[in-house]
Amino acid sequence: MLKRFSNIMLLMQEVKDLPQECESIRELTENMGSTGFQATHIKEAIELIKRMKQENATIFLSFTSNIIATGLRSIIAGMVKKGYVDVIITTGGSLDHDFIRTEKNYFISSFDEDDEKLRGKGFNRLGNVLIPNDRYMFLEKKMKEVFTALEEEGPVVAPSDIAKEIGKRIKDENSFLYQAYKGEIPVFSPGITDSAIGLQTYFFKQMKEDFGIDVTKDMKNLAEIVLNAKKTGGIIIGGGISKHHTIGVNLLRDGMDYAVYLTTASSWDGSLSGAHAKEAVSWGKIKKGARCATVHGEATTVLPLIYYSL
Amino acid sequence: MLKRFSNIMLLMQEVKDLPQECESIRELTENMGSTGFQATHIKEAIELIKRMKQENATIFLSFTSNIIATGLRSIIAGMVKKGYVDVIITTGGSLDHDFIRTEKNYFISSFDEDDEKLRGKGFNRLGNVLIPNDRYMFLEKKMKEVFTALEEEGPVVAPSDIAKEIGKRIKDENSFLYQAYKGEIPVFSPGITDSAIGLQTYFFKQMKEDFGIDVTKDMKNLAEIVLNAKKTGGIIIGGGISKHHTIGVNLLRDGMDYAVYLTTASSWDGSLSGAHAKEAVSWGKIKKGARCATVHGEATTVLPLIYYSL
Amino acid sequence: MLKRFSNIMLLMQEVKDLPQECESIRELTENMGSTGFQATHIKEAIELIKRMKQENATIFLSFTSNIIATGLRSIIAGMVKKGYVDVIITTGGSLDHDFIRTEKNYFISSFDEDDEKLRGKGFNRLGNVLIPNDRYMFLEKKMKEVFTALEEEGPVVAPSDIAKEIGKRIKDENSFLYQAYKGEIPVFSPGITDSAIGLQTYFFKQMKEDFGIDVTKDMKNLAEIVLNAKKTGGIIIGGGISKHHTIGVNLLRDGMDYAVYLTTASSWDGSLSGAHAKEAVSWGKIKKGARCATVHGEATTVLPLIYYSL
Amino acid sequence: MLKRFSNIMLLMQEVKDLPQECESIRELTENMGSTGFQATHIKEAIELIKRMKQENATIFLSFTSNIIATGLRSIIAGMVKKGYVDVIITTGGSLDHDFIRTEKNYFISSFDEDDEKLRGKGFNRLGNVLIPNDRYMFLEKKMKEVFTALEEEGPVVAPSDIAKEIGKRIKDENSFLYQAYKGEIPVFSPGITDSAIGLQTYFFKQMKEDFGIDVTKDMKNLAEIVLNAKKTGGIIIGGGISKHHTIGVNLLRDGMDYAVYLTTASSWDGSLSGAHAKEAVSWGKIKKGARCATVHGEATTVLPLIYYSL
Repeated sequence: MLKRFSNIMLLMQEVKDLPQECESIRELTENMGSTGFQATHIKEAIELIKRMKQENATIFLSFTSNIIATGLRSIIAGMVKKGYVDVIITTGGSLDHDFIRTEKNYFISSFDEDDEKLRGKGFNRLGNVLIPNDRYMFLEKKMKEVFTALEEEGPVVAPSDIAKEIGKRIKDENSFLYQAYKGEIPVFSPGITDSAIGLQTYFFKQMKEDFGIDVTKDMKNLAEIVLNAKKTGGIIIGGGISKHHTIGVNLLRDGMDYAVYLTTASSWDGSLSGAHAKEAVSWGKIKKGARCATVHGEATTVLPLIYYSL
Repeated sequence: MLKRFSNIMLLMQEVKDLPQECESIRELTENMGSTGFQATHIKEAIELIKRMKQENATIFLSFTSNIIATGLRSIIAGMVKKGYVDVIITTGGSLDHDFIRTEKNYFISSFDEDDEKLRGKGFNRLGNVLIPNDRYMFLEKKMKEVFTALEEEGPVVAPSDIAKEIGKRIKDENSFLYQAYKGEIPVFSPGITDSAIGLQTYFFKQMKEDFGIDVTKDMKNLAEIVLNAKKTGGIIIGGGISKHHTIGVNLLRDGMDYAVYLTTASSWDGSLSGAHAKEAVSWGKIKKGARCATVHGEATTVLPLIYYSL
Repeated sequence: MLKRFSNIMLLMQEVKDLPQECESIRELTENMGSTGFQATHIKEAIELIKRMKQENATIFLSFTSNIIATGLRSIIAGMVKKGYVDVIITTGGSLDHDFIRTEKNYFISSFDEDDEKLRGKGFNRLGNVLIPNDRYMFLEKKMKEVFTALEEEGPVVAPSDIAKEIGKRIKDENSFLYQAYKGEIPVFSPGITDSAIGLQTYFFKQMKEDFGIDVTKDMKNLAEIVLNAKKTGGIIIGGGISKHHTIGVNLLRDGMDYAVYLTTASSWDGSLSGAHAKEAVSWGKIKKGARCATVHGEATTVLPLIYYSL
Repeated sequence: MLKRFSNIMLLMQEVKDLPQECESIRELTENMGSTGFQATHIKEAIELIKRMKQENATIFLSFTSNIIATGLRSIIAGMVKKGYVDVIITTGGSLDHDFIRTEKNYFISSFDEDDEKLRGKGFNRLGNVLIPNDRYMFLEKKMKEVFTALEEEGPVVAPSDIAKEIGKRIKDENSFLYQAYKGEIPVFSPGITDSAIGLQTYFFKQMKEDFGIDVTKDMKNLAEIVLNAKKTGGIIIGGGISKHHTIGVNLLRDGMDYAVYLTTASSWDGSLSGAHAKEAVSWGKIKKGARCATVHGEATTVLPLIYYSL
């Protein structure tokens, strides 16, 4: 690739010092392309997401539930609203937090709180975010209504039915479930029982023992989206089941055409969460020659920069 | 806790230089207690696991699927065989790898392989482990048999039924599914469709459209184990859905009595995977005053040291 | 601290969803305070730096040399120019890059380059930044002039003399050495021989064998700054010798009054680079009750957000 | 490299399940080669260090000071004693801890201590190791003797003179300074003023104002070792100035022939501490075609496994 010294230096992009004054997010991220290190990857991520949309790729957005406990919730909703998302894959916890936060607030705290004291006071800590216990009582009550409504149409539901039913019942511009419902964007949650909503099924089944969640029900819909897409792209925030399900299902079409990863995990432990985009190429989860960007960074810092620059 | 200077120094454990000669793993880990940094936590983890067993705690073991792609697979099986495990919670990928590796081998490679070339040659990379494509064809064939057998008893199964059926069909001392079947240890996998086995359900349903996996079916069994236990302990290797499901279900009894975490993730991103044991105390997933050890380290390095010292 | 449930919730700051539209960096960082996770710490860092300046604290800025190889170089210079810095502590490599980049450019590349090929083509890789070999030939020539000039005034110099002499010879608004020279801000570099400049002393001594760098010469100046300051604050980007020297010298006054850490390192390995601000309190390197913020993040992503919001 | 599928599988090393029983460290590390992930790298590191010695390479050992505050101190000393080290490059803090610990003990504590309380009680925290304040008073007294003795021979010393003088005055098999003195192994410490010893020079100069430390004095000796070596190898534990000085000085001979890195740092932030061995190849700090192993892991966990298997 580096043919000749003199040529190279003509072709390569120079590192440029950032301006000493800058007020605009777009101007900053524009300059990040020639800053170096992860700034360069942020600029690439922005370009790639724009391109996915321009080329009408079917865009998969995956994220972990902690994101929805923070102020980023509205940004996820905004991405859906603005047409940057065609499919959502996330955990049950994301549904928990999104539903609760349509009516109740969470609090800013510290990573160094005394957790035994918090337990005594009825606060659950999620990083430096606190969630009062009663938020989960609210969720339990609401979910009983959701399950009851769903169960009336048939005892066995798919995870995406639950997400849709919640979205239908709320009206909050900052809720991703609301925006997904409104925009007819399916929300898949293959590990949904691992959440407060999931735990709630245990109690609900004591009343309606035939009630169930058949996770294979979503496979057909998801597979058809993948198989019918002209191109696909992934915006993958964090790791875990949501990340893997997003890239894994794209195996059915020999891989995604575009991928943006935003991660704090490391690849050297052989984890899926830390695996770089290139590893997915060996599996056919991302296409050979696909355009990819892996941003190493934390979501509350990086995602706003990307979103506000789209 | 640090009452008076002079007292303290009598009570506190000294840092001791390791011996310049040592051949035995047990002697090494014994000395790690007074070495400092993570060595100290490894010694604590060993002590805690021993104690969980001595006190007849119901022990939950959770792990990520990459572990089963490595030589650690036999150690997980060994822990089950030797009675250190009462409940397993893991991902669908663990079932994939365990089943395949009863008959087929994986290969050691490098983290820096050219993934496009690997794709061309038919190798899937998982860190520095390579899995030839035909391993998944083998799995597909085998899973068709498993699903067919299960479907004959009823069209809708629980994830734990699948794990059990696989365990029944194999005989391999190094397989955790075999050891779990033999020891009547339930294997829960709440996110099972996110795996090769899960993808296989999509194809199997094309033949048997009533076939399904109802993930709520396992909730009752799992909840009863938690509710009936005198004490519970968790050995939690890595993060993701397996970690959260293990601590989450222990909410039903106001938390575990013992917890050992082995992790490469960081807590400062607010992730569940990186959250320290103390965070779980605020939720009631781990009890106030529970004995916990968080070892920051990579499993192939740390887990053998712990296991061989039990 | 959490007295009563009902009171708490009145006093605590709520998590607020970010606006779906935002163009201004200041508006973004203002909102980060109520976003959660590291966003919250970015807001705290901004507030703390503003306060250090308002209270006329003597502000120490430390950073690693890789920063000066990127577009952040001008931001470091801008902080000096705008009066946010009274003392700089950095590595020899920072002097190398700053001097070279006043006349020569670096290039943006990839973390995944083939390093053997780069070696053949004469490019040195620093993350995803490339530095052509001839840049170091340029530096050698220039440093011979610097050493010759210094040696004429006396054979044994302090590291800060070298930094000052370079600053005197250049005129570049984006150079921190230029801005420091102009603003009479001392630049300390206790490990200066570990750099290209340092290696150059080996060759220079072959001509002038009495030439030397006495690192103790800077101790008095640095100590007096610390001892005479009414208050001190530290802005510490990255780890290593620059971080430790900054907090270490503040021992002489029983610790800094303010500290902002920006880091990618972890504390669990017992490293100084990863140690949180609270650890420094036990040593008297940071005062009891000092106001501190530790931002876990990468400099090219985080530092512009902080700087443009001051 | 992967020529043909069928050939490959014959040539590649299989992943092998670890034995369910194992008592010996050597047996464990032997098996780690076919375990995967970082276990594989540990085995490679052991092989490489053995080979450096067999081929009479001049072996550079670099490490950070926190190592010497733990039980690993004796292992560093053991490596020197057993002939695995020809040159040591480390920080001033390593000299501090090694000297103190020949006569005084440190204590095991927790990473989560209340640092304000520790300050009140006179304990300095280094990760989960506590150092009582009086240890530093002891060091001050001893260093005054060392400086006085050195100053009598001439007012300006090299860092390696200080290390040697300390080594001469102690007799402790577990001290690396003692073993280095005994084995005539030079100890270089280019950033020595950044330490308690360095701070002590500030006070000593108040009595003897001509006393100084000329860091360029060590450059010639170090350069000659590098230039005269037939082959060189590096065992590099952690990052910072010690790591960079080790690889940087090997530029003079176009790079090391062998390198083993043991690190907890990440490469994606463009840091020297996190840079993989391959990056150093582009600089000529490690030779093209050199044999390298990078172990991602924490020293107290990994170094004993390596050392006891040599």
